[in-house]
Amino acid sequence: MTGSAALFTDRYELTMVDAALLDGTAHRESLFEAFARRLPDGRRYGVVAGTGRLLELVERFRFGDDELEFLRAERVVRDETLDWLADYRFRGEIWGYREGEAYFPGSPLVTVQGSFAEAVILETLVLSVLNYDSAVAGAAARMVSVALGRPIAEMGSRRANERSAVAAARAAYIAGFDATSNLEAGRRWGIPTMGTAAHSFTLLHDSEEDAFRAQVEAMGPGTTLLVDTYDIRAGVETAVRVAGTGLGAVRIDSGDLPTVAAAVREHLDELGAVNTRITVTSDLDEHAIASLASAPVDAYGVGTSVVTGSGFPAAGMVYKLVARRGEDGAWVGVAKASTSKTSVGGRKNAARRIDATRTAREELVYVGDGPGGEDEFAADDRLRPLMVHLMHEGEADAAHVGPAGVRAARAHRAEVMQELPIEAFRLGRGEPVIPTTYR
Amino acid sequence: MTGSAALFTDRYELTMVDAALLDGTAHRESLFEAFARRLPDGRRYGVVAGTGRLLELVERFRFGDDELEFLRAERVVRDETLDWLADYRFRGEIWGYREGEAYFPGSPLVTVQGSFAEAVILETLVLSVLNYDSAVAGAAARMVSVALGRPIAEMGSRRANERSAVAAARAAYIAGFDATSNLEAGRRWGIPTMGTAAHSFTLLHDSEEDAFRAQVEAMGPGTTLLVDTYDIRAGVETAVRVAGTGLGAVRIDSGDLPTVAAAVREHLDELGAVNTRITVTSDLDEHAIASLASAPVDAYGVGTSVVTGSGFPAAGMVYKLVARRGEDGAWVGVAKASTSKTSVGGRKNAARRIDATRTAREELVYVGDGPGGEDEFAADDRLRPLMVHLMHEGEADAAHVGPAGVRAARAHRAEVMQELPIEAFRLGRGEPVIPTTYR
Repeated sequence: MTGSAALFTDRYELTMVDAALLDGTAHRESLFEAFARRLPDGRRYGVVAGTGRLLELVERFRFGDDELEFLRAERVVRDETLDWLADYRFRGEIWGYREGEAYFPGSPLVTVQGSFAEAVILETLVLSVLNYDSAVAGAAARMVSVALGRPIAEMGSRRANERSAVAAARAAYIAGFDATSNLEAGRRWGIPTMGTAAHSFTLLHDSEEDAFRAQVEAMGPGTTLLVDTYDIRAGVETAVRVAGTGLGAVRIDSGDLPTVAAAVREHLDELGAVNTRITVTSDLDEHAIASLASAPVDAYGVGTSVVTGSGFPAAGMVYKLVARRGEDGAWVGVAKASTSKTSVGGRKNAARRIDATRTAREELVYVGDGPGGEDEFAADDRLRPLMVHLMHEGEADAAHVGPAGVRAARAHRAEVMQELPIEAFRLGRGEPVIPTTYR
Repeated sequence: MTGSAALFTDRYELTMVDAALLDGTAHRESLFEAFARRLPDGRRYGVVAGTGRLLELVERFRFGDDELEFLRAERVVRDETLDWLADYRFRGEIWGYREGEAYFPGSPLVTVQGSFAEAVILETLVLSVLNYDSAVAGAAARMVSVALGRPIAEMGSRRANERSAVAAARAAYIAGFDATSNLEAGRRWGIPTMGTAAHSFTLLHDSEEDAFRAQVEAMGPGTTLLVDTYDIRAGVETAVRVAGTGLGAVRIDSGDLPTVAAAVREHLDELGAVNTRITVTSDLDEHAIASLASAPVDAYGVGTSVVTGSGFPAAGMVYKLVARRGEDGAWVGVAKASTSKTSVGGRKNAARRIDATRTAREELVYVGDGPGGEDEFAADDRLRPLMVHLMHEGEADAAHVGPAGVRAARAHRAEVMQELPIEAFRLGRGEPVIPTTYR
């Protein structure tokens, strides 16, 4: 796999560049916008994720010898265009919503300004990152809101492509998960990692007791023992016998969880292990977590449902040319017109209207204004500006990238969730919790 | 992103290795098996994909300085275990189904044999690759079977994580797609790439006619012109005026496709462009493709639905310890026993029973036998052996990796599809088209 992001690109982007270089339109200053026409069916809000990853990938978007040689051999573009690609790096501007921000239909999440050629070429990359990461974050946020403060760990790496898994761990953490099983997510993004043992570890040993002894020997009694390989009741008894009443936690990965958790809690208490926690991890999604609210569960581990967006594995964002500069230097809004797949043309700015109780009431999208921040809305404290300057002349704002960007995004999401109307957190299907108004 | 695959791993795999090294059980020879307990709900067959990618990733699975430093800093394992990891490379055996093979519940798709420590550590990687790639291939195969020989291109990169997109293009191609829009999939795996222009290219220009002229200038009249940016009828007329009746194709990306395709075909014929093809690309899945069977459509482009497994973005495979060697050297089957999530323990071999009409009738899984190939079934030509030796002493069989492996997998899939009972290709929900029998 190449280190460059330049071929994570649909062929048509390069053929468009090729044709536009030939007729000179490639250099027209253009503004592309990534947005979602709608939220996943029935969801009340979305959570932006991927922005920090995207900025890093855009900075690394270069055509090296391997990439150019492939394009030459396949005759994807003319030789003159290969020379242009060899010199390519993005030198434009990117504005957008902070990572971790809530979003609604039409929210201008990422706005890319540059020549047509330099901005169109990023289409696939922008969408791949935002569509997947925001799908995970949107699902994860729902799980966090129904977990009622109990910690949740992301354990779905095995249910996602090996590299998606790293992005999923990152997006889930931004959305409020507390840890991940994925080690690369720990190394690359500074996310806390967790995990102790699988059923195979018990089956490897001659008895469950041997397995528990080995684990406690290596990891101490504060570890989490998996008690459901054979008989759960016997497993709990063995676990406490081996680790003592100071056993950190037991994990249950099967069975009817509310019933099993109640029985295990009672049994642990009988055995004196009153501080031993119970972690459950069997095919959980937001609905299963909600149904465990009154069960004596201390922590959740979530796999498949979070890394696959809980039914919506892509967030449905599109990347559209919304404006280009005319010959007089003025911006001209453009939009496809033929069908229901319409977009609102024009440069945009956005703010969220907040009422006196600090509750969000409306997503305001200002058509015709350029993107901007604090200044535009300083006069009105009921308007929270949503667009920040993410990249200037091809250089990412350091606040949004790397592990620090992840921490900032997670903190921002926590604040934003406080601001959403309470109906946002109902699991049932409904409309976006605030309307989007174009001005 | 690291070049090694070693941290695409759940933390518990390393803590299990740590504990098992401490009590000596790490060296017990073990056999892990990847299989699916069931097919995605209502599907009649699955298609194995990812095997070739997996073999390459296993060969590259090494802990370098960056990875070891992270594990040391995080105190994931003891120092002695770090030394063991520093020396790690997989030196064991892998057998399994050929990539492109059909599979059913319980089919032993990948079998990994080695010490417990060297085999358990691959758990997440094996599952990440097989679960995603097979999810895509299973969905893609259904689309191919209802396309009735019309070519299908994979165009879903923007709806999947940027690196998943490359794997998705590969899996779809193995399942019978003809091309991809993803350039990295072309470079890395030798898959034909395609694509011409988006709506933004038309909107960039002062008129649709200018845009078409620019594209034809750069790519010749054999190109595909996107005709639905404004009015489709006017778009078709402009396209033929600009490119001539030798225009290669028009693409339609919106509207009620059966109606629109019929109108466009009639219009093209009126204009004398009788050989100009029609490509459609708007939110297609297997059901939409099937409903276009009688429409005058020449080619399909499929995005979201194929890269997200058309409703099932993970194939549901698990990786279980099924046998380990006892102190007497004999294999002992093992399996979790507590709940409904049961597995069948023991080493396994597999063959498909084929009747006199060359139709598959039964998936036979031989429990207790080791995996093997031709020899075991040579005496009975009604049994097609399913397991091949994919990796020996840590080295992949060259026939299964790289672009050549992809071509072989695609060819194998085409043969296997011929062999499935015709009911396999019904889109409606049903049972697996052949039963799995354990012997």
